[in-house]
Amino acid sequence: MDIPEQFHFEYLRRVEFSDTDMAGIIHFANYFRYVESAEHAFWRSLGRSIHSGKGEDQHGWPRLNVSCSFFKPTRFEQLLKIRLHIQEVRNTTICYGFYVFDDQEPEPALVAAGEMTIIHVALKPNSGNLEKAPIPDDLRDQLNKVIAPASN
Amino acid sequence: MDIPEQFHFEYLRRVEFSDTDMAGIIHFANYFRYVESAEHAFWRSLGRSIHSGKGEDQHGWPRLNVSCSFFKPTRFEQLLKIRLHIQEVRNTTICYGFYVFDDQEPEPALVAAGEMTIIHVALKPNSGNLEKAPIPDDLRDQLNKVIAPASN
Amino acid sequence: MDIPEQFHFEYLRRVEFSDTDMAGIIHFANYFRYVESAEHAFWRSLGRSIHSGKGEDQHGWPRLNVSCSFFKPTRFEQLLKIRLHIQEVRNTTICYGFYVFDDQEPEPALVAAGEMTIIHVALKPNSGNLEKAPIPDDLRDQLNKVIAPASN
Amino acid sequence: MDIPEQFHFEYLRRVEFSDTDMAGIIHFANYFRYVESAEHAFWRSLGRSIHSGKGEDQHGWPRLNVSCSFFKPTRFEQLLKIRLHIQEVRNTTICYGFYVFDDQEPEPALVAAGEMTIIHVALKPNSGNLEKAPIPDDLRDQLNKVIAPASN
Repeated sequence: MDIPEQFHFEYLRRVEFSDTDMAGIIHFANYFRYVESAEHAFWRSLGRSIHSGKGEDQHGWPRLNVSCSFFKPTRFEQLLKIRLHIQEVRNTTICYGFYVFDDQEPEPALVAAGEMTIIHVALKPNSGNLEKAPIPDDLRDQLNKVIAPASN
Repeated sequence: MDIPEQFHFEYLRRVEFSDTDMAGIIHFANYFRYVESAEHAFWRSLGRSIHSGKGEDQHGWPRLNVSCSFFKPTRFEQLLKIRLHIQEVRNTTICYGFYVFDDQEPEPALVAAGEMTIIHVALKPNSGNLEKAPIPDDLRDQLNKVIAPASN
Repeated sequence: MDIPEQFHFEYLRRVEFSDTDMAGIIHFANYFRYVESAEHAFWRSLGRSIHSGKGEDQHGWPRLNVSCSFFKPTRFEQLLKIRLHIQEVRNTTICYGFYVFDDQEPEPALVAAGEMTIIHVALKPNSGNLEKAPIPDDLRDQLNKVIAPASN
Repeated sequence: MDIPEQFHFEYLRRVEFSDTDMAGIIHFANYFRYVESAEHAFWRSLGRSIHSGKGEDQHGWPRLNVSCSFFKPTRFEQLLKIRLHIQEVRNTTICYGFYVFDDQEPEPALVAAGEMTIIHVALKPNSGNLEKAPIPDDLRDQLNKVIAPASN
């Protein structure tokens, strides 16, 4: 797989015993938990939290769709590197891409790759429900600067 | 282990692949999830939900302490029987005991046993916090009838 | 979404407390655990186990890729219906499709849909490794009969 | 709670989104996963892995019993400090104690505390089963040095 040069956020994660299954390898659903943790670390690196606001100022980012291909099993105590990048920022959604590498030497191997699209929801005062809402300008600006630092 | 005759609620649960670990057996922390699911099924059998109320009428039942001993490993696709009983209903807390049996024939084996104490919390209007609160009388009455049906 | 008439296996699953997150809804990664449990129940309905064999006769079915779109949040104690079907049986892989419905009345709502491709691996005597292997004929026959019972 | 001065291993762990539940706090069963990860990091600090050996030299450390009391809820993105110590090394078992602290300032609060006893099992050549076995001398020596460095 050809991995393009681009902005990305790196997150390290050791495979935990409770995340393995009886096949002796990490259970596939846990990759999504690991990637989500990478995403939240990325948000913290921007000085933000993915889950913010209380009462009338509540915001959230449910997942709209996710996909992942698995290339190689990983095992207990391997140190994985998750490489998260932003593919697209649209009106209400952000689409991430991600690659997961193992700690093989001398060259880490690509073990999984996929995409995750999230959507911005905010509390609608009248309905009391969380409904999809445009991405706030300050966040959009911040993400755009991160994606294309050279152009700023 | 001598298991006393008493009221108990039975809940069946098949060991799932994602709940096993690389040792080929169920990961111990998942017993607590299974027992909690048995507890919630017990509450449903009373016409109740463990998590109820909204806004100013919010109630919750955080766990105060839990313990479990493990006697025998269990594996993928085994059908476990969880036997939950009430040890004590106090002013703000309920203490459950539980036994977990496997599907061994002709006699199921005891694979785990433990206790779980939960505490009633309710929203305090002034503070906006969840604080411990006496168990409501109607719930207490219902639990007492379940524990000692003969005396009613 | 137009859901075609076809063979499918149905599996019921109640959303558990430990599978929700602080957003108050099921955490998305748990849908994959639920769908996998539906798959394993489907295999049991065929008189098989997804994980079988010991020593030199070991077989496994790692996931090759998965995807899921999420349409509507689901909450604690909702009873979900997972509808699994087989999209394609190839030389070494099986591709499933799945739909997840909630328990809304009078008409359940589609809450998630996706695909999952799994690959057959078997122990290679010489290498001692699990390597991809053709799907055994008896399994292929059984799956084909399930998919298109009218033609048999 | 009076926390004695003694050897302990410290492990930091941030509460992850997927480890929270609809009550907005970490789900209690996840503390056991976090404590186990602390234990495995402690073993790595000794140059060991909790899960080692293959074929005829297989070793394992199933849990014999665990308990935990919960004093204060913890939330998404809080950085927890897990403090693991060894209470006793017996013939075939190790008993750990643990304390979990949050990141409250200026003084972290104790949020949970408990015990976990594990038992050494090794493959019995004749039976092909994992059976309880004395703790190997080199490990026992290493643990004793860690517990009481002053006396060595």
